[in-house]
Amino acid sequence: MAKDVILSGMQPTGKLHLGNLEGALKNWVSLQNDYQMYCCIVDWHSLTSDYAHTGDLKERIFEMAMDYLASGLNPEKCAIFVQSQIKEHAELHLLFSMLVPVPRLARVPSFKEKRKELGLDSYGFLGYPVLQAADILIYKAKYVPVGQDQLPHIELTREIARKFNSFYGDVFPEPEAKLTKFPVIPGIDGRKMSKSYNNDITIAESPEETTVKIMKMYTDPKKIYKGDPGHPEECPVYLLHQIYTLDYEKIYPVCHSGELGCVECKKILAKNLNKALELIRAKRKELEENPEIVKSALESGAKKAQKKAKETMKDVRKAIGLCGAS
Amino acid sequence: MAKDVILSGMQPTGKLHLGNLEGALKNWVSLQNDYQMYCCIVDWHSLTSDYAHTGDLKERIFEMAMDYLASGLNPEKCAIFVQSQIKEHAELHLLFSMLVPVPRLARVPSFKEKRKELGLDSYGFLGYPVLQAADILIYKAKYVPVGQDQLPHIELTREIARKFNSFYGDVFPEPEAKLTKFPVIPGIDGRKMSKSYNNDITIAESPEETTVKIMKMYTDPKKIYKGDPGHPEECPVYLLHQIYTLDYEKIYPVCHSGELGCVECKKILAKNLNKALELIRAKRKELEENPEIVKSALESGAKKAQKKAKETMKDVRKAIGLCGAS
Repeated sequence: MAKDVILSGMQPTGKLHLGNLEGALKNWVSLQNDYQMYCCIVDWHSLTSDYAHTGDLKERIFEMAMDYLASGLNPEKCAIFVQSQIKEHAELHLLFSMLVPVPRLARVPSFKEKRKELGLDSYGFLGYPVLQAADILIYKAKYVPVGQDQLPHIELTREIARKFNSFYGDVFPEPEAKLTKFPVIPGIDGRKMSKSYNNDITIAESPEETTVKIMKMYTDPKKIYKGDPGHPEECPVYLLHQIYTLDYEKIYPVCHSGELGCVECKKILAKNLNKALELIRAKRKELEENPEIVKSALESGAKKAQKKAKETMKDVRKAIGLCGAS
Repeated sequence: MAKDVILSGMQPTGKLHLGNLEGALKNWVSLQNDYQMYCCIVDWHSLTSDYAHTGDLKERIFEMAMDYLASGLNPEKCAIFVQSQIKEHAELHLLFSMLVPVPRLARVPSFKEKRKELGLDSYGFLGYPVLQAADILIYKAKYVPVGQDQLPHIELTREIARKFNSFYGDVFPEPEAKLTKFPVIPGIDGRKMSKSYNNDITIAESPEETTVKIMKMYTDPKKIYKGDPGHPEECPVYLLHQIYTLDYEKIYPVCHSGELGCVECKKILAKNLNKALELIRAKRKELEENPEIVKSALESGAKKAQKKAKETMKDVRKAIGLCGAS
């Protein structure tokens, strides 16, 4: 039996950080054995907010592809590709655009929030979830691994699939969100790790750089002197210990008692974190020295994606009654 | 020197009528010698309003293509093609969508009018002029033959070209409307000839059908009996005489004096109209019997359009900094 299809997407932000690794990549790597995975680098989506800053777009895509491969995504098992290379996404997006009322899009929470926050009001930004629906449905994906905030987009995708099917006949499945809980990874300032906060630790950086960042990390503000008792449950360093330190339970009591100072505690974390990233970073180094491996992975991914997208568009054109592709 | 490019488009409504012939086709035929013409059958555009009625779309496209060729559009000189076969239109539309504010689109007069009139509120309908801008600019058209009502769309197209060029560098020309004045062709009920009013005389119908329709035509309501004086300036039959009767000036005085009855007057018109359409209809008959000629014209048109569209998208991708096409 054919494997169920999963579509995942990420905007090409460039070098990925621990938040991306723990919150998405590791999950994808574990899924690639049991599902037919399409890992799409959604460069068109990034233009909805970043249309004015495209000078380093190709570089950002390439850096991200390196992190994908270094983290264990296997191009033999899944398709890693760039959205804009598969024109069929744009074609399906256009066809879907006829089926979605503007007021429905104006009600999407992410639109309302970001419109206020970033002042975005472009037609393309309003249509973000329509393009996302095309990304998902063109591969007839059954599951989409997303966070809670993306649920309204998946719901809209399901509505579009239903509407299309009711007008033109059964072409699309109704995809489901694959919600997985991940710890929120704190950045070095204690807020959520994010490139835009400039508080991130990337996969690509050296152990030395990583150690410097960890040593600068925000800790429990109530522990002022070395001997003061700590509150690990409120400390971002301890949060990272829980992920990267095998016997992290042993940290708790000695921090709590005041026995373990923050400097020492961070040194342990830096060592364990660098250890945990050792293989991934070695692989990344290898890819940096052999960019043709990355290029070839993106090419074979695009070929796989293209094949499936063309098949789906054949069904779509037939169902609607459009002329065949030239 | 390369010829200037003209882009013209028409929604696939099916068999064309005298209004289309006099208002558009004859103009295009006269332009094809001096310009590089792209005559696009915009099937995607038709989905903005007719997404629910696509069963006869292919047939409508084919009928229209026959009328194009019968009227004298020469596939050796111009490119006659179907929009949805050139995916690059959808791709460019998506890229343009990032540059156009929603409030700008909501102000387009045709959107405001049709939204009220037809109750359309889809995302695709709002984006109609963005798709039209892509249709025009993907061929780097310098001129677009349009009526007065389309001027706001051309203005938006120019804005999009300017905005794109200012962000990414000079890629697009600013196209100009090629306004040409044509007589409004009256339908058999005296209103503007239109398929949707069901008052049209098509190129495809037989001389007999045409005569029957002309004989039913609405005339001067003040001329009740044969001998009553007529008012040709208010009579739609006389409007058609002005187009299809060479010595139409001679009709005026004899109608005005009451000498010429409406029945006789219509017989003259029917004869002259059928005579004027004789060659076009003969050519159409020939095409109906040899559909492969039409198919091959659409294929060669798509090839020409594809070539130019691919060239432009190469420039576009390079300017924005997107990855090359796969």
